Amino acid sequence: MRRTAALLLIGNEILSGRTRDDNIQYLATRLGELGIPLHEIRVIPDIRETIVANVTDLRARFDEVFTTGGIGPTHDDITAPCVAEAFGVAWEFHPATYDMLKEQFGADFNPARQRMAKLPRGATPIPNPVSRAPGFSIGNVHVMAGVPRIMRAMFEELAPTLKQGAPVFSRTWHTLNLFEGTIADGLEAIQNTYPQLDLGSYPFHREDGRRGVALVAKGQDKEAVEQAAHAIYTLLKEKGGAPLEGEPPP
Amino acid sequence: MRRTAALLLIGNEILSGRTRDDNIQYLATRLGELGIPLHEIRVIPDIRETIVANVTDLRARFDEVFTTGGIGPTHDDITAPCVAEAFGVAWEFHPATYDMLKEQFGADFNPARQRMAKLPRGATPIPNPVSRAPGFSIGNVHVMAGVPRIMRAMFEELAPTLKQGAPVFSRTWHTLNLFEGTIADGLEAIQNTYPQLDLGSYPFHREDGRRGVALVAKGQDKEAVEQAAHAIYTLLKEKGGAPLEGEPPP
Repeated sequence: MRRTAALLLIGNEILSGRTRDDNIQYLATRLGELGIPLHEIRVIPDIRETIVANVTDLRARFDEVFTTGGIGPTHDDITAPCVAEAFGVAWEFHPATYDMLKEQFGADFNPARQRMAKLPRGATPIPNPVSRAPGFSIGNVHVMAGVPRIMRAMFEELAPTLKQGAPVFSRTWHTLNLFEGTIADGLEAIQNTYPQLDLGSYPFHREDGRRGVALVAKGQDKEAVEQAAHAIYTLLKEKGGAPLEGEPPP
Repeated sequence: MRRTAALLLIGNEILSGRTRDDNIQYLATRLGELGIPLHEIRVIPDIRETIVANVTDLRARFDEVFTTGGIGPTHDDITAPCVAEAFGVAWEFHPATYDMLKEQFGADFNPARQRMAKLPRGATPIPNPVSRAPGFSIGNVHVMAGVPRIMRAMFEELAPTLKQGAPVFSRTWHTLNLFEGTIADGLEAIQNTYPQLDLGSYPFHREDGRRGVALVAKGQDKEAVEQAAHAIYTLLKEKGGAPLEGEPPP
């Protein structure tokens, strides 16, 4: 069974270049392992109309939607009310979350922190073992923190509850000093033999002068992946390459 | 003058988690410097309908659209014909590019490599000082390679030709052991005083236990950025922080 996921990163820090994204690769890898591969990623600013429109669009087109960012206590943390708006439900105090955060913060449980106890009506909290204030799931939308350490902890709380799809298998060869233009025709012939697979060609071109190409065969049909990987190995040898299994060195 | 940019990353390697993106932060930073800040990023697979739909959508909504990936010689390199389709023009040999690549490759100028000499009709090549095969601009869409070293070289060829907007100024303070919930109200008051700025609050939570927050004041009104930065410094001191200028340590 094919299942699909989209990822929506909410906030200005990646768009401005202030921080380098540290969430995409983790989630892409984990979702592939769970058989819910990522089909689209978007990074958007924390503008109400933009968030609502993107949540509405993505949740209609993909089986699962994951968001990161915008669930803290400051004025620019508007993801939760926007998701509530996208679902047409109230954004209101979640009693169990309110009680938990009240106990945690004591006299410091001020109005800003109380905002973190508000969820869209009908949402299920995603536990946060790092700093307590939860994420949440509503329908097929899963709202997580943007801080990588917290996002990962939330995702691993959420993962066992997700409906998994068929796992994706892949095999990769790389070779130095052999270029895409030399193997393109042979690779296309292999792709045509195995239309149920995705064959990818990824050139690398390092600052130190090392150049070459990585070739990936990927799909849910494990036997076809093995056969295509063998055909790729044979092609690379024929063209004078010295294929090595796995990713090229960094 | 406000100008806006969108970035479209085309290809499966980031969606699958195979590679970590190495282009977003570079382009986000450079576009901010040029006064054409990024407002949206999308990562999409190399599927024809998906590429055409995204190019069509983004070029209508943003002043400039930059794409990376999918312009090599292999079967999965379909960005150029898709951009041609989005513009409703032919994808055809560009004579000067054909002659240049023919001279470069000599007897190895096979049909796969000849594809790299095809551009949408009316496109202007973006020179590629690293490996020759060019990117191109058509209308407000700028098509570049995905390999980071080549993308950067192409972007720097393109940059002097772009219409720049007003530069964005920013100042950042960070402090350890002071949390968003403590300063949220004060920060919102500063945001309300300077509605023309974007004030951002970015908590950090490191594996080694260091925690704190980075506060950013950003906008095109330099005087207001300075005043807001002073107000943020004062707020952090009041709340018991030890503010330091600049980003938190990694």
